[in-house]
Amino acid sequence: MDRLSHHDVMIVLLSLGVLLLVARTAGELARRLNQPAVLGEILAGIALGATGFGRLFPNAHAALFPSSGPPTLVLHGIGTVGVVLFLLVAGMEVDLSTIWRQGRTAATVSLMGIVIPFGIGWGAAQVMPELLGLEPGADRWVFSLFLGTALAISALPVIARTLMDLDLYRTDFGMLVIAAAIVDDLVGWMIFALLLAMIGAPGHGMSVGWTVLMTLGLAAFVLTIGRWGVNRTLPWLQAHTSWPGGVLGFALSLALFFAALTEWIGIHAVFGAFLVGVALGDSVHLREQTRATIERFVASFFAPLFFATIGLRIDFIRNFEVFLSLLVVLIACAGKVLGCALGARITGTPAREAWAIGFGLNARGAMEIILGLLALQAGLIGERLFVSLVFMALITSVICGPAVQKILGRRRVRRFVDYLVPKAFVPRLVSTDRREVISELCRAIAPAAGRDTALVEDAVWNREQTMSTGLEQGLAIPHARIPGLAAPLVGLGLSFGGVDFDAYDGEPARIIVLILTPEDDRGVQVNLLADIARTLKDPELRTKVLHVTNATELLALIRTEAPPPA
Amino acid sequence: MDRLSHHDVMIVLLSLGVLLLVARTAGELARRLNQPAVLGEILAGIALGATGFGRLFPNAHAALFPSSGPPTLVLHGIGTVGVVLFLLVAGMEVDLSTIWRQGRTAATVSLMGIVIPFGIGWGAAQVMPELLGLEPGADRWVFSLFLGTALAISALPVIARTLMDLDLYRTDFGMLVIAAAIVDDLVGWMIFALLLAMIGAPGHGMSVGWTVLMTLGLAAFVLTIGRWGVNRTLPWLQAHTSWPGGVLGFALSLALFFAALTEWIGIHAVFGAFLVGVALGDSVHLREQTRATIERFVASFFAPLFFATIGLRIDFIRNFEVFLSLLVVLIACAGKVLGCALGARITGTPAREAWAIGFGLNARGAMEIILGLLALQAGLIGERLFVSLVFMALITSVICGPAVQKILGRRRVRRFVDYLVPKAFVPRLVSTDRREVISELCRAIAPAAGRDTALVEDAVWNREQTMSTGLEQGLAIPHARIPGLAAPLVGLGLSFGGVDFDAYDGEPARIIVLILTPEDDRGVQVNLLADIARTLKDPELRTKVLHVTNATELLALIRTEAPPPA
Repeated sequence: MDRLSHHDVMIVLLSLGVLLLVARTAGELARRLNQPAVLGEILAGIALGATGFGRLFPNAHAALFPSSGPPTLVLHGIGTVGVVLFLLVAGMEVDLSTIWRQGRTAATVSLMGIVIPFGIGWGAAQVMPELLGLEPGADRWVFSLFLGTALAISALPVIARTLMDLDLYRTDFGMLVIAAAIVDDLVGWMIFALLLAMIGAPGHGMSVGWTVLMTLGLAAFVLTIGRWGVNRTLPWLQAHTSWPGGVLGFALSLALFFAALTEWIGIHAVFGAFLVGVALGDSVHLREQTRATIERFVASFFAPLFFATIGLRIDFIRNFEVFLSLLVVLIACAGKVLGCALGARITGTPAREAWAIGFGLNARGAMEIILGLLALQAGLIGERLFVSLVFMALITSVICGPAVQKILGRRRVRRFVDYLVPKAFVPRLVSTDRREVISELCRAIAPAAGRDTALVEDAVWNREQTMSTGLEQGLAIPHARIPGLAAPLVGLGLSFGGVDFDAYDGEPARIIVLILTPEDDRGVQVNLLADIARTLKDPELRTKVLHVTNATELLALIRTEAPPPA
Repeated sequence: MDRLSHHDVMIVLLSLGVLLLVARTAGELARRLNQPAVLGEILAGIALGATGFGRLFPNAHAALFPSSGPPTLVLHGIGTVGVVLFLLVAGMEVDLSTIWRQGRTAATVSLMGIVIPFGIGWGAAQVMPELLGLEPGADRWVFSLFLGTALAISALPVIARTLMDLDLYRTDFGMLVIAAAIVDDLVGWMIFALLLAMIGAPGHGMSVGWTVLMTLGLAAFVLTIGRWGVNRTLPWLQAHTSWPGGVLGFALSLALFFAALTEWIGIHAVFGAFLVGVALGDSVHLREQTRATIERFVASFFAPLFFATIGLRIDFIRNFEVFLSLLVVLIACAGKVLGCALGARITGTPAREAWAIGFGLNARGAMEIILGLLALQAGLIGERLFVSLVFMALITSVICGPAVQKILGRRRVRRFVDYLVPKAFVPRLVSTDRREVISELCRAIAPAAGRDTALVEDAVWNREQTMSTGLEQGLAIPHARIPGLAAPLVGLGLSFGGVDFDAYDGEPARIIVLILTPEDDRGVQVNLLADIARTLKDPELRTKVLHVTNATELLALIRTEAPPPA
């Protein structure tokens, strides 16, 4: 049997390692700037590609990312499995019941959010095909249909993440936006699948009519009988096979089968996986653990590899055209923002909220990039338009969060550890009485506050004297408002012996959290107090906090083991 | 760039889907028979290979699993990544601190468990090299060293799983066996790495001396400075990168890097991944969730694919030799069982327990198979001996559980749902008083008991009258011993309205579990009562139980969401 040589194996592992590390790091940096990880992952691929790393170190680049040979094929194979599993996860996030619950408003918003961008895209492609990058010899009608579709889809993951960041996910507004995005995605992908079917896949000798029919038939089958079957199978697997391996194996092999099937039909493998994802995600019997295991592994292994490979394969610098890219961004935003906002206004949504809905649904993210890549591979579009679509996908995702935040005046959810001053974490308090402990913590935090220690101490002690801040079960939260402070500051001290903070239950305080907020803190202090009490409610977690030795470990503990923010 | 054709993509996805589904299914069947999953996975590969599926449907087989071309390379590439990640997980299971805690006994057992099988293997290879499958022209010394090493290693995962099944994992006995297995694995793999280094990897122009030196140096580096660095890095990643994606990406790319490095040194990629796994698993900061996510995905995706590919690639039927296989099994068991038992006896372990230790550590499982495969690829051994080693690995794993169970007289841990009679699950009890409810459940369970309903009902009601079986919070557990019953039987009824079972807290019973046990039940009844009370302690889970509509869903719920057995 054909197999990889010793050298091939080394190159495959090394290139995967480099791609994964650089893509994950760039993805983290993007997340730090409140941007979707896919932005960083694609940029990582570009940096590692011909125009970045390849220009600086051509020999090393050619050795690590050869343009032909077995390692290249393996990388492409793993990328393909990656995008198939990515769409499985995307499908699992589609919750069909959300759509019904949101009813008429969601239907109107999503309908307008498809029809108007589609119309604008289609019209623009008809009026100025060359300006929009129609390749010579390509069919103008098919091109117009594609552009319309490409502008009509949304990026559910980016939108969901933005809503969560702004604590809007579980609100009516959030559910409306999610429902509309789901419909847009489902309809958009179905149209695109039909489009791929229409241009016909070479080599299987099927007529266009058959391909279209089979595409529709498969979708109808999976979303009805398939869904029912999955819902019946999951409890059986959970009851009678090893947990969680049985369900995981079933879900993954089902995705691979349907991916192969749709590839055979002549549309792309991702559709089959997406449909399987929808059927799985819709089942009430799918456990959160199964979803999370697949989602986490795909998001931290397959997806970064896949998106970095895109950046690696395509020369984004050479194919980047400023005018084309800006034009695509303009048309995309105009269609989607106006369409959705209009849809929301029609159903009586207030203007401000309607605009927020428009900008929320405007994010295109990873979905647009995958759709563009498939179109590129099918010969529907050229590399120039592909690069512009990627640019548009990233820009619309980048604007999404800040725009919604600005329009609705929401602030991002923050937790008390976000304001922790590392130097004000005191793992072993030396003081043993309330006044001294407060003084000790104030001395630690004063430099970061840019205030005199005595001033801070007085404020906190005065507040403490009006009413003790000792809560139950060994937790105390002394706090004060400090005039002129720029942002909230948090300090934390641990005392094994315990300090009497005059708590109701008589327990001495072992975890003492100091909060300083600006004078006009717009509710931040109250929120922080609530967050601390809620975060440290679990006795097991409090015990772990007591054994922490530095600020990083504390942050790590809270972020990985405390309940998520309310 | 080279890329897969439309047809290649379809073949890759389809062959992966088929391999995964068949391997997982066979793995599940093996688990059903209390055997390691790897047994089923390899058999699945054999069934799908040239001698099974290929003989029946040669054309379909050639299309799905071609022996050359891009899909074959991709399958090999994914299998390689799979085995690298499998060894990462194996390394993460190695807990160095367990060794120190077990001290002298563990050291003696593991030392004797290496020296004696190594000596027997080495001696046998010296005395009868041809009988043991020495290939013509191969070096007899290297061959002897290999055989000694191959017989000295253990299979930590199989051993750990067996101990858990028998509820021995957290006992002194269990920890001793685990510690000895860890040492055997570490030492065995290091010797094997040195052996690979000594026979020299072609193409990198490094001398044998250098390769050996670098192997030792790398191991020393990773297990000291590397371990320290990982332990420092993990909290930082948890505190400052997205959770859990940051840590996952770091762990996976680290494994890939070190795999590439060891491949470059001239030993195999799996060593680097294994070392990284040990360093990661040893950190107190590695969260259970990170470990579980990697472990679950690897066990249900990469590992089945990898092991099935082995069965697919190698013609097990043609290369199977009865005499050679039995000889290898005999030598392997003699060395390991005697060596470990002797080691245990020397440190004063009672004879019965010493034998149990010997048979426990005798399991070779997946580790032996991987080691054999590497030796085969390096040209150290031929296919005949490889097949015999696989046979030996499977046989020793298959004996392990039953042997330990028999010697120690332990029974497998069973939960109350294991005895649930599906027909005796009554989702809506019609009765509303205690006597009637008992009668209703007895009518449902009597056919399975093969007893007259009146007899069963009388026994349960008599017991109920001596003292009410209503526990707190809406749970009641009526029960009785029934003469002549072959095995325990459990029925379960739900009552939304609640039934007065005269509980201390006055709450009416909503979940009523009926237990019938044989007259001489050797403590089963008490264990079942305790298991039910413990399993259904969580109020959230009790609410979910109330909404279950059939026995399969109940079983699924308990297996996926209840706390693991005590």
